[in-house]
Amino acid sequence: MGMVGGGEGAFIGAVHRMAAALDGEIELVCGAFSADADRSTRSGAALHLPAERVYGDYQAMMVAEAALPAEQRMQFVAIVTPNHLHFPVAEAALRAGFHVMSDKPATFNLAEALQLRELVQETGLLYGLTHTYTGYPLVKEARERIQSGELGRIRRVVVEYPQGWLADRQEDEDNKQAAWRLDPARAGVSSCMGDIGVHAANLAEYVTGQKIIELCADLSAFVEGRELDDDGSILLRFDGGAKGILFASQLCVGEENALNIRVYGDKGGLEWHQQEPNTLWLKWADRPAEMLRTGAGYLGPLAAANTRTPGGHPEGYLEAFANLYMAFAGLVRAREKGVAPDERAADCPGIEEAVRGMTFIELAVAASASDTKWHVFDQH
Amino acid sequence: MGMVGGGEGAFIGAVHRMAAALDGEIELVCGAFSADADRSTRSGAALHLPAERVYGDYQAMMVAEAALPAEQRMQFVAIVTPNHLHFPVAEAALRAGFHVMSDKPATFNLAEALQLRELVQETGLLYGLTHTYTGYPLVKEARERIQSGELGRIRRVVVEYPQGWLADRQEDEDNKQAAWRLDPARAGVSSCMGDIGVHAANLAEYVTGQKIIELCADLSAFVEGRELDDDGSILLRFDGGAKGILFASQLCVGEENALNIRVYGDKGGLEWHQQEPNTLWLKWADRPAEMLRTGAGYLGPLAAANTRTPGGHPEGYLEAFANLYMAFAGLVRAREKGVAPDERAADCPGIEEAVRGMTFIELAVAASASDTKWHVFDQH
Amino acid sequence: MGMVGGGEGAFIGAVHRMAAALDGEIELVCGAFSADADRSTRSGAALHLPAERVYGDYQAMMVAEAALPAEQRMQFVAIVTPNHLHFPVAEAALRAGFHVMSDKPATFNLAEALQLRELVQETGLLYGLTHTYTGYPLVKEARERIQSGELGRIRRVVVEYPQGWLADRQEDEDNKQAAWRLDPARAGVSSCMGDIGVHAANLAEYVTGQKIIELCADLSAFVEGRELDDDGSILLRFDGGAKGILFASQLCVGEENALNIRVYGDKGGLEWHQQEPNTLWLKWADRPAEMLRTGAGYLGPLAAANTRTPGGHPEGYLEAFANLYMAFAGLVRAREKGVAPDERAADCPGIEEAVRGMTFIELAVAASASDTKWHVFDQH
Amino acid sequence: MGMVGGGEGAFIGAVHRMAAALDGEIELVCGAFSADADRSTRSGAALHLPAERVYGDYQAMMVAEAALPAEQRMQFVAIVTPNHLHFPVAEAALRAGFHVMSDKPATFNLAEALQLRELVQETGLLYGLTHTYTGYPLVKEARERIQSGELGRIRRVVVEYPQGWLADRQEDEDNKQAAWRLDPARAGVSSCMGDIGVHAANLAEYVTGQKIIELCADLSAFVEGRELDDDGSILLRFDGGAKGILFASQLCVGEENALNIRVYGDKGGLEWHQQEPNTLWLKWADRPAEMLRTGAGYLGPLAAANTRTPGGHPEGYLEAFANLYMAFAGLVRAREKGVAPDERAADCPGIEEAVRGMTFIELAVAASASDTKWHVFDQH
Repeated sequence: MGMVGGGEGAFIGAVHRMAAALDGEIELVCGAFSADADRSTRSGAALHLPAERVYGDYQAMMVAEAALPAEQRMQFVAIVTPNHLHFPVAEAALRAGFHVMSDKPATFNLAEALQLRELVQETGLLYGLTHTYTGYPLVKEARERIQSGELGRIRRVVVEYPQGWLADRQEDEDNKQAAWRLDPARAGVSSCMGDIGVHAANLAEYVTGQKIIELCADLSAFVEGRELDDDGSILLRFDGGAKGILFASQLCVGEENALNIRVYGDKGGLEWHQQEPNTLWLKWADRPAEMLRTGAGYLGPLAAANTRTPGGHPEGYLEAFANLYMAFAGLVRAREKGVAPDERAADCPGIEEAVRGMTFIELAVAASASDTKWHVFDQH
Repeated sequence: MGMVGGGEGAFIGAVHRMAAALDGEIELVCGAFSADADRSTRSGAALHLPAERVYGDYQAMMVAEAALPAEQRMQFVAIVTPNHLHFPVAEAALRAGFHVMSDKPATFNLAEALQLRELVQETGLLYGLTHTYTGYPLVKEARERIQSGELGRIRRVVVEYPQGWLADRQEDEDNKQAAWRLDPARAGVSSCMGDIGVHAANLAEYVTGQKIIELCADLSAFVEGRELDDDGSILLRFDGGAKGILFASQLCVGEENALNIRVYGDKGGLEWHQQEPNTLWLKWADRPAEMLRTGAGYLGPLAAANTRTPGGHPEGYLEAFANLYMAFAGLVRAREKGVAPDERAADCPGIEEAVRGMTFIELAVAASASDTKWHVFDQH
Repeated sequence: MGMVGGGEGAFIGAVHRMAAALDGEIELVCGAFSADADRSTRSGAALHLPAERVYGDYQAMMVAEAALPAEQRMQFVAIVTPNHLHFPVAEAALRAGFHVMSDKPATFNLAEALQLRELVQETGLLYGLTHTYTGYPLVKEARERIQSGELGRIRRVVVEYPQGWLADRQEDEDNKQAAWRLDPARAGVSSCMGDIGVHAANLAEYVTGQKIIELCADLSAFVEGRELDDDGSILLRFDGGAKGILFASQLCVGEENALNIRVYGDKGGLEWHQQEPNTLWLKWADRPAEMLRTGAGYLGPLAAANTRTPGGHPEGYLEAFANLYMAFAGLVRAREKGVAPDERAADCPGIEEAVRGMTFIELAVAASASDTKWHVFDQH
Repeated sequence: MGMVGGGEGAFIGAVHRMAAALDGEIELVCGAFSADADRSTRSGAALHLPAERVYGDYQAMMVAEAALPAEQRMQFVAIVTPNHLHFPVAEAALRAGFHVMSDKPATFNLAEALQLRELVQETGLLYGLTHTYTGYPLVKEARERIQSGELGRIRRVVVEYPQGWLADRQEDEDNKQAAWRLDPARAGVSSCMGDIGVHAANLAEYVTGQKIIELCADLSAFVEGRELDDDGSILLRFDGGAKGILFASQLCVGEENALNIRVYGDKGGLEWHQQEPNTLWLKWADRPAEMLRTGAGYLGPLAAANTRTPGGHPEGYLEAFANLYMAFAGLVRAREKGVAPDERAADCPGIEEAVRGMTFIELAVAASASDTKWHVFDQH
């Protein structure tokens, strides 16, 4: 793979590289790691890449790689830039004939996401989106338990994603991660919902198998001087009849990355916490709650296929991330062999999640600004 | 004390009796335990009461007890009937000159609560309301930590109260507890918000020291055939600038009585779970989260005054309940001695909580039925 | 009941009184609360006892109460003094014809315990011993699950009881609780094993239904100047073939009262923690661990009979203690009626536990001092 | 690196490869993956290795690699065979001039370990041993907190390692992992202590900074027909005056890989659980327990250097394993540059841990068989 973004000091670029490397199936062969050519060069060298495969900008990379013999060139592009560049880079890659694996949110705004979908359909190329948290084996198990009907008809969803790192003006303190996320020119219309709320919404839809159809939102920018939301609560209604709440915040002091989900059907409930990802709770009316654990023999095949170590050897965020890369690699391989992707590969989030995510972000912001209670979630 | 309600088979009456008995300061001396005189008699006998102090109805009890010499008669009435009788019994007691300790919700509707407040003010008698969960020592500690400013300016509240016991039609199955709670004639306009949501709202106000000023609600009756809500989500705004979500449900299969609260200020956060009530979390931006424990020496005086055993000897629901009774007994004693109540007694929930609780219930129901997003919480 | 010990400032006396009062079935009618007659008088007054039933010493109390008409006199004596008085008070009570409910350890040494057993057999009176922790409903459930064979043949026991309160020389700081526990003249041959290790040993035998037959011990007095152990580790062997470790300590800084037990059979395992007593874990080879909860419908009849509130309304230490009192009251009632005690009453720890406890304490101390590895536990 | 062992179906070989690959600093360049040459070839091909670097046996690999130009040949050998081959492979590698990174236990018996140490000293080559659990950032933090004196003088250690997977005769069921671990010819004198007890002992020494000087052991082979222990309890004494218990078992049904440690000094205590490795508890006498979390800013430099993601993005077993590889890679790099290793590299377990581990295993087995209580741990 080739990488765009992720130069020295970037967080998510390194995560993508570790995730891609973990299973020994994906090799980083080139990159345009920074818009600053020197920084890109230094980054490439630190990654042991040959100088000629380290590019000063992504446009040059697409051209040069496309010109290489098929067996040498990169097979897909990983996009790990700030949000406003996701679309232009993806567009360039697709137009140059490369599959795309993109960090989320997919684009700067919904219009771009819709354009991107057209482009993906037009080129017939593959597009993956790193909604990381659906990469955890027990999130997959949760989804399968609900699909199997074990929990009955789903009624109630509680999904939440509190963080605390933006509780004060980090963006003034030379914190790059904070600065771009709170800058409308680079992040888009939302900070909290764009950065983390969208993960929560995606998780809720993935696990329940239901789509959001309506929402009512109350977003805030609690910290003075912020143009974008740093906290928000959203009431949700789903197409299968479930109702829910989604709560995301960047100012819950002391919280790290506490993405949690609870789902209740008429026969049972489940609960999962990202910070203890190797435990999934199933809850029942007339018998004890059960604690399912990653790596256990009683889990379904999809969870098993996404697990690397035996029970009790904890897997974490990088393993979940690597699962997305393995799924995407599976898609690429299946495409090359002209066969249907296997179950694990088919489970990779893609362009539909991209469009839904951007729809969610824009609708949440609009709904919060409105006096109207309910807002329809457009099923583009 | 005398008791109205709580005959054989009733749950909450026994709880009140154990709570009142625990500290050896309050003696049950009489009761009208059931509208069915035989049942009342049997219940009184089982409680080792002399037959002449067991009454067939509460009106008779008020008359007879008032006629006794002061040193023999009951000093206050504990009301543990279904909701629709709370007000008439309280009214009768107050008019007969007795202080009242009432189960919640205080009355059948807001109009009664306002009337009750007038009556309390008019008679000058004492009125206590068993918002049990504020009786836990660590809930009191949480309140004090916020009052002291340790957490900074409060921004974000998450309070939730999921239960699962009404996930199917228990009301058809000879489950008395279920039957009256879902019957508009006995429970009032709400089941879920009236029975448990009101506890959550009270807890949020107690802990934060802020008052709800606006809300947006989405209640449901998921189980077919129900006239009253069995689930609901509410967006909250508080007078101190905080925002919050309140979620209560009676159909979260597998949940028992999971009242939980999280509060975040600009300096710190806290978290408390009713089912593990002896732990209170304080969370900080730049240092480790702290786990406070009931009975520890570092807790404040109010928590200490409401604790009976050393750390590690878990206290529970009955002890919290007993704390309310001890507070109320303190109010009664202070009144008798003509002195100001001490801090512990002053902490007893009373008529203002009664009015706010009924306001909350009615507003939640009305707001849910409305297309308007925000509804003003009337500060009666 | 009448009480010996437990005057002003005593911890365990108040606990016994609350436990006895909780269910409204046992009334404190007299007491000799302190060897200091004034202190006894003040304590009795604070407890609302009539002056004539408050005695200056326990000998006087036995005489006076025995002289009262049967329907007025106390029915049994609760002994809550320091260890060295347990036996003389019990002896006096039994000789005066009163049943005895004693705090643990039963006596000052094993010789006294054996004497006490003879006396109990001779008088035919009832003797209860407050091994509190076996009063928890889920401890009873644990025992029943093992008895039923659900966990298979038991192989491995891990029982531990760390506390931290004696990590420094509290006994110098006017801490009465510390002072007598570390004084050989009042506590006996052991502090840590006598105060808490004996609870752990009792819990292990109660839950597994197996008896300790051999042990190997390493006790310490870590804090300088102490004559008695403040920490110890013991290897255990049981008559059913299980092996185990028992670890108890009074100097595990930061630990409160962390009595925990884990038991593993060839089919399943279980785990229980006193500080979260409403949860019992069952663990299985090929299916998820199950979390059993106090108050749940799936528990056995003994757990149910020892539970006061519905699931999710946490019960604690006082409720467990009250369960012992209810069991003992049941024994007394059955005796009076001349019937066999019911299952709940039959579950009360008594004179056999007294003898085993004293055997354990003395053997642990002797074994620790010895170079011999294994020491036989005398099955008196 | 080159690898010996770890062909198709092996567990630990894949773990080593993922751990080595994670950071993009170590490349697998060759291997002798199985004593079965065909299997080795297939395994190498599946790992995308060129056929000429996949060897039929480890002897051939040493010869062929040593013959390659320095810049092409492997820089070190990773040994992931069953125990009995650890020494011969390590010996061959060292004699051929290659550094060695070995799975644990280091050798088949103590004699080999002592020989190995001589060889390492003689060749001056590097030797690393994968005591994985010391690779966790919070284990390093724990060690540093104790070294800094924050917990005071250490008195009490509790280390335990229960697993449940060998509770029945898995070795009969074509379970390779079980078969060699219970076979004296391949595993050595111990199963439970050799496979997991040795990790627990290493962890206790690493965290406390104290060395075991004496022990008393009770090992068992509970499952019929086993020649090696599947369970054991050990009393420990340390050179700094601490006492402890070590408990390890392979038949605790329902336990996965529950390596846990608690350490108490006279000022504070700490607790860590491998299955929730991103939390470290610090416990105090007079203030609340603190929950430290991986990735937090308040951790020391060694923890920080061994962490890849921000707080709340859980790291697991593979990351801990990768930390050992990064440390070893740091040793190799420092050696090549002729500089002193940095703090992270210096933290790599090596030949001293190898000798201590084998001493522990043999002493535990001998002590268990002996009637003598205490056995001296030879400080070779």
